[in-house]
Amino acid sequence: MDIRGKAIVITGGYLDTSTAKTAHGLLRGTERFDILGVIDPKFAGKDAGEVMQGQSLGIKVFATVKEYLQTQGILRPDFCIVGVATHGGYLPPSLKEELLFAAHQGIHLVSGLHYMLHEDIDFQQVVQESAIQIFDIRRIRPRKELRFWTGEIYQVKTPKIAVLGTDCALGKRTTCRFLLETCQSAGIRTEMIYTGQTGWMQGYKHGFIFDTTINDFISGEVERVIVACDRQEKPDLILLEGQSALRNPSGPCGAEFLISGNIHHVVLQHRPARKYYDDTEVPIPAIESEIELIKFYGAEVIAMTLNEEGMSKQEILEYQQEMTQKLGIPVLRPLQGELVQLIPKIQLLLADF
Amino acid sequence: MDIRGKAIVITGGYLDTSTAKTAHGLLRGTERFDILGVIDPKFAGKDAGEVMQGQSLGIKVFATVKEYLQTQGILRPDFCIVGVATHGGYLPPSLKEELLFAAHQGIHLVSGLHYMLHEDIDFQQVVQESAIQIFDIRRIRPRKELRFWTGEIYQVKTPKIAVLGTDCALGKRTTCRFLLETCQSAGIRTEMIYTGQTGWMQGYKHGFIFDTTINDFISGEVERVIVACDRQEKPDLILLEGQSALRNPSGPCGAEFLISGNIHHVVLQHRPARKYYDDTEVPIPAIESEIELIKFYGAEVIAMTLNEEGMSKQEILEYQQEMTQKLGIPVLRPLQGELVQLIPKIQLLLADF
Repeated sequence: MDIRGKAIVITGGYLDTSTAKTAHGLLRGTERFDILGVIDPKFAGKDAGEVMQGQSLGIKVFATVKEYLQTQGILRPDFCIVGVATHGGYLPPSLKEELLFAAHQGIHLVSGLHYMLHEDIDFQQVVQESAIQIFDIRRIRPRKELRFWTGEIYQVKTPKIAVLGTDCALGKRTTCRFLLETCQSAGIRTEMIYTGQTGWMQGYKHGFIFDTTINDFISGEVERVIVACDRQEKPDLILLEGQSALRNPSGPCGAEFLISGNIHHVVLQHRPARKYYDDTEVPIPAIESEIELIKFYGAEVIAMTLNEEGMSKQEILEYQQEMTQKLGIPVLRPLQGELVQLIPKIQLLLADF
Repeated sequence: MDIRGKAIVITGGYLDTSTAKTAHGLLRGTERFDILGVIDPKFAGKDAGEVMQGQSLGIKVFATVKEYLQTQGILRPDFCIVGVATHGGYLPPSLKEELLFAAHQGIHLVSGLHYMLHEDIDFQQVVQESAIQIFDIRRIRPRKELRFWTGEIYQVKTPKIAVLGTDCALGKRTTCRFLLETCQSAGIRTEMIYTGQTGWMQGYKHGFIFDTTINDFISGEVERVIVACDRQEKPDLILLEGQSALRNPSGPCGAEFLISGNIHHVVLQHRPARKYYDDTEVPIPAIESEIELIKFYGAEVIAMTLNEEGMSKQEILEYQQEMTQKLGIPVLRPLQGELVQLIPKIQLLLADF
């Protein structure tokens, strides 16, 4: 499914929360879409970047799709994207209304929700009436499009780094993208493999959507996308976007990437202020234990990266210093441009191969 | 899908190998089907139990379905079951021929292959002509039949034991069933939850088919079936059939059961003679390392159980003695009735809760 074009992103009141992580990813950069604006009544009139990260991006927030079209008539979007990943993947009614309105204006819809727009009778109707298309990114791919793990992964000699995390929704994909840009700036020909719907929306060439894949084919898909990326792009380095966390009870994940993807190096994203797994009362284990666990899967954590939400600058600096000493590995702040400190270590990895 | 009845099982030359693990499970006992015979040209005339485990079961092997029907006319089967789990889940041509023949005789078909019989034009034709039904056990369940993990699992106070293994196809389900029977004989009201298609075929009431579930719903399904089993049966003890192995590259698995199913006790099935993961050249890690890894997921290995294939009796006895000392936990031979030795330990678990 290779679509490209101008787009608006709907966040329905969530723009300042991690529920809008799809929108955040798109705002941080996408090669697939040209983001014209964000639709969110709660933050109308503000700059989307200011709301997301306190830093202007020159992308304005509008209350409704209607307001956008009335005021920005010239810059007409081709696509309207659902920018939230709701718990359970359902579609909030207010979002549905906005999407239907957009569709009636002839704008194609893109959704990464579990809820399949194309199976909803209201959307089916608007497809007929307005001749628009619906792109349900999370559709389940049939068996014939999938393959089993074969061991072909062992032929890939290119170094690979997985960006895993200690929870879901704490910035793995963002850190992975920043690491991609940092490596590319340092002259390392680097490819990033996506494993979530936002990654697809950002336009990376190689990847698959992990959580909608039939379980038996996960390992085969991990292998397939790494092998394809390696053969087609012949990069110096492959980065793999992780999902969830190894011990997140609502969906433990990670072994598939490390074992089936034969990955030996990990950057571990962590949010110190988060004490419990997202939406649970289950405590997140100590970072040392997570690093030990990753070792059991044959991989070394080469750096920890920090999500700073919920901490003062002072707190984050103290935590960073303390953990650097404790763990003996770099503890870095990706949003502060510190990933560049990893480059010498990565250069060594490349030299070793 | 609750069907019951008389059945024959097709194994297409594989009856003496682990490829026929579905047939083996059915021969060892099923409440869903009454097994009348096995169809396997390679072992025609023999007793299926003799071929499988060197011990008669009074179930005869026939060369073809035709031979079965011609000689055993009175005992007419309702179902013909595919008794093999082929690598990649494909349907060998010789098996297809037998299945089509059976269907033409008005016998319903049951298959746990990835290959969907009901999507095959030849089977579609025979369904129309002979008014038989096809039960593709591994069909992918749609999202609306599935649910996410909620944390409800923490309300289950009944002790739970997962039977995990160090590889796939080495007897986890069989050990789990033997443990079920052993506990029941000891007066412990025990339920076994299945997670594979053979478990469904054996007729356990609670469970789901792990490997055909959309990945995002695995944790929710694990939770759902345990909660349902606990509420409906109010058992003393719940056993959970594991799948694959935590570090099997062709499909790592286990964390979902332990973490999302909140399971704290494990019986670990191992086949000492197998040095590499099934169908790979990847060495199986040391058993001590596997036990350590399981600890990271909050569970204790309370016993190791042995698959004796590929070892002499002398070798297995030596191995058993050595490992008992090394690990400090019982190392048991399920096929020799040794699981009964676990009962005191399980009684202690029950008393603790």
